[in-house]
Amino acid sequence: MTETTTSQVTVLGLGPMGTALAAAFLAAGHRTTIWNRTPGRTAALAERGATPADTAAAAVAASPLVVACVRDYAALRTVLTGTGADWTGRTLANLGSGRPDEARALAAWAGAQRLGYLDGAILTPTPTIGTAAGTVLYSGPEESFAVHRPTLAALGGRPAYLDADPGRAAAYEMALLDLFATAVHGVAHSFALARAERIAPTDLAPYARGIGGLLPEMIDRAARQLQAGEFPGEVSTIGSAAATIRHVAETARAHELDTGALDAVRALVDRAVAAGHGGAGLGRLALSVPR
Amino acid sequence: MTETTTSQVTVLGLGPMGTALAAAFLAAGHRTTIWNRTPGRTAALAERGATPADTAAAAVAASPLVVACVRDYAALRTVLTGTGADWTGRTLANLGSGRPDEARALAAWAGAQRLGYLDGAILTPTPTIGTAAGTVLYSGPEESFAVHRPTLAALGGRPAYLDADPGRAAAYEMALLDLFATAVHGVAHSFALARAERIAPTDLAPYARGIGGLLPEMIDRAARQLQAGEFPGEVSTIGSAAATIRHVAETARAHELDTGALDAVRALVDRAVAAGHGGAGLGRLALSVPR
Ligand SMILES: NC(=O)c1ccc[n+]([C@@H]2O[C@H](COP(=O)([O-])OP(=O)(O)OC[C@H]3O[C@@H](n4cnc5c(N)ncnc54)[C@H](OP(=O)(O)O)[C@@H]3O)[C@@H](O)[C@H]2O)c1
Ligand SMILES: NC(=O)c1ccc[n+]([C@@H]2O[C@H](COP(=O)([O-])OP(=O)(O)OC[C@H]3O[C@@H](n4cnc5c(N)ncnc54)[C@H](OP(=O)(O)O)[C@@H]3O)[C@@H](O)[C@H]2O)c1
Repeated sequence: MTETTTSQVTVLGLGPMGTALAAAFLAAGHRTTIWNRTPGRTAALAERGATPADTAAAAVAASPLVVACVRDYAALRTVLTGTGADWTGRTLANLGSGRPDEARALAAWAGAQRLGYLDGAILTPTPTIGTAAGTVLYSGPEESFAVHRPTLAALGGRPAYLDADPGRAAAYEMALLDLFATAVHGVAHSFALARAERIAPTDLAPYARGIGGLLPEMIDRAARQLQAGEFPGEVSTIGSAAATIRHVAETARAHELDTGALDAVRALVDRAVAAGHGGAGLGRLALSVPR
Repeated sequence: MTETTTSQVTVLGLGPMGTALAAAFLAAGHRTTIWNRTPGRTAALAERGATPADTAAAAVAASPLVVACVRDYAALRTVLTGTGADWTGRTLANLGSGRPDEARALAAWAGAQRLGYLDGAILTPTPTIGTAAGTVLYSGPEESFAVHRPTLAALGGRPAYLDADPGRAAAYEMALLDLFATAVHGVAHSFALARAERIAPTDLAPYARGIGGLLPEMIDRAARQLQAGEFPGEVSTIGSAAATIRHVAETARAHELDTGALDAVRALVDRAVAAGHGGAGLGRLALSVPR
C-alpha cells in the first residue's frame, strides 16, 4: 500500500468481516465511523480510534464512502431504506456476498438516490484483511473506483477492478464461493469419515493439507483444458475417479454418514462416463454440469 | 532417496499411475518387470529398460516384490486368481484404491497363499511419483514394509508406514479421497458457473487457485477445533456460510446447472444451524455429518 492519503470512511456491519474491515481502515490511519444493528460490537474498535454512530443515518452522514458488510442484500436493504439518510454525492461500497442480480438491483436503487455504487467481493478470510494477501474484487463505475481506491487499498493486496457491470464482482464471487462451499463440505466430510475410522483430526490434517495443496495445479489444468476444448487423460481420468468415488461413498454409507454430497459427485462423474468421457481428464467434468 | 540397493520389482497394471510407478522404479535403477491386461501399453517403458511379461503369472514369477496398481480390488482379484502363480515367499504391495474392508479381505486371501501383503494408498498424482512430493501411505506387517522399503522408496518422498492393520492405509485414503472427490466437483461446478456467467476459465483460474490456497489453513483450523472440541466462530461462522451457499445455489439454479452437490452442502449447513451451531466455526460441521 503506497497510498497514504487519509480520508473518512464509514463501516456498516461489524460481524467478523466488518470488524476486520474497520480495523484495517483504522490501521491505515483513516477516520473511521462504525455502526452495527445490534449494539455492543463497537467497544474494541472504538478503543483503537473508531467513532461509533448511534444510528445508521448518522453513520452514513459521517463519510463520503460508506462500506457495507452485513450478511446479505436483504439485510442491507433493511439497513439502507431504514436510514432516512441523504445519500446524495456519497458512494456505497457493498462488500457483503450475494447474487449478481441482487448487486444490479441495488445499483439501480442507489442510482435513484443519487448515490454512487460499487459492488465488492471479498475473496479471502478475515485474518488476511489489511495484509498483502487480502483480495477484494470490485465492479461498478470505474470513476467511483478510481476516487475511492486510495481508501479501499487499506483492505489489502491490490484491490482488483473488474468491470462497469455492478454484477460482475458478484458473478466471480458466486463461482468462487461454489468451489469454497463445496470444499468446506469436503473438509467436514473427510474429518467425519476419519472420525468414523478412528483417525484423529490431527493425524489426518497433514495429509488433508496435502490434498488441498493439489488444488491449484488441478485448477490450472482444468482451465487449460477448458480453454483449449481438449481433455487429455494422461494424469488421471474421469473413469478412474468414478471407481474411487464409489468406494468412498460405500465406506461413508457403511459408517452411516450422510452421503448426499458424495452421491451428487458420483452422479456427475457417472453421467460424464455414460456420455463417453471416461477416458477424459477431470477438466471435462465442468461441461457435464448443466442439466 | 539415500538408499541405492538395486532390486527386482514387478508392476501389474499400466494405467496412468502404474506407468508412473514403473517409470520411477526404472529411474531408480531397479530391474522392473511390467504387465498390463490389455497389451500395447509396454513399449515406452520397455524402451527405458523394463521387461514386459506375456502373462501375469510370468510377471509375478519374475520378482520377490509385486506392486499392483489396477483400477480396484475386484479387478485385482481377477488378475491374481487368474495367474495360477506360486506366490510363496513373495510380497504383494497393492497401491490401487479401495475400501478398508477390501484391503483386509485381500490380506486374508494373501495369507492363505503364503503371500506377504502390504496395502498402500497413493496420495499424490502421477507427475509427483519418483519426486520428493510423491506420497504413499502403507499398512500391513511392519517387517514386510522394512524389507521392501528400499525399493518402494523409489516412488518418492518418504514412504510412510501407518499400522499393522492392512486396512489402515485405505481408511486414510477414503477420508482423503472424500475431500479430493468433493473438491474436484467443486472445481468443475465453479468453472461451469463461471461459464454460465461468461467468465473465461483462464480469468477465473487465478482466483480459484487462491480459494484452493485457503484450504490448508482451514483444514488446520478445523483439526484444532475438532481436537479441542471447541468451535469459536471468530474467523467465520456456519450461519454466514449458510447465507452464501443459498446465494450460490440460487445462482446455479437460475443458470439451469445441476445443484445436487450444492443442495447437499446446504442441507448439512442448515442442519448445523438448526441444531444451534450458527455462531460456531466451520470445523463444527464435521460433527453434523452422521445421519
Ligand atoms: N467472514 C469471512 O471470512 C467472509 C469472507 C468473505 C466474504 N464475507 C461476507 O461478508 C459479509 C459479512 O460476513 P461476516 O463474516 O461478518 O458475518 P455474517 O454473520 O455474515 O454477517 C454479520 C453482520 O450482518 C449483520 N446483519 C445480519 N442480519 C442483519 C439484518 N437483518 N439487518 C442488519 N444487519 C444484519 C449483523 O448484525 P448483528 O450483529 O446485529 O446480527 C452483522 O453486522 C457476508 O456477506 C459474508 O458472506 C465474509
Ligand atoms: N492417477 C492418479 O493420479 C492416481 C492417484 C492415486 C491413486 N490412484 C489409483 O491407482 C489405481 C490405478 O489408477 P490409474 O490412474 O492408473 O487408472 P485406472 O483407470 O483407475 O486403472 C487402469 C488400470 O487398471 C486396469 N484394469 C481395469 N480393470 C481391470 C480388470 N478388470 N482386470 C485387469 N486390469 C484392469 C487397466 O488395464 P487395461 O489397460 O487393460 O484397461 C489399467 O492397467 C486406481 O485404483 C486409482 O484410484 C491413481
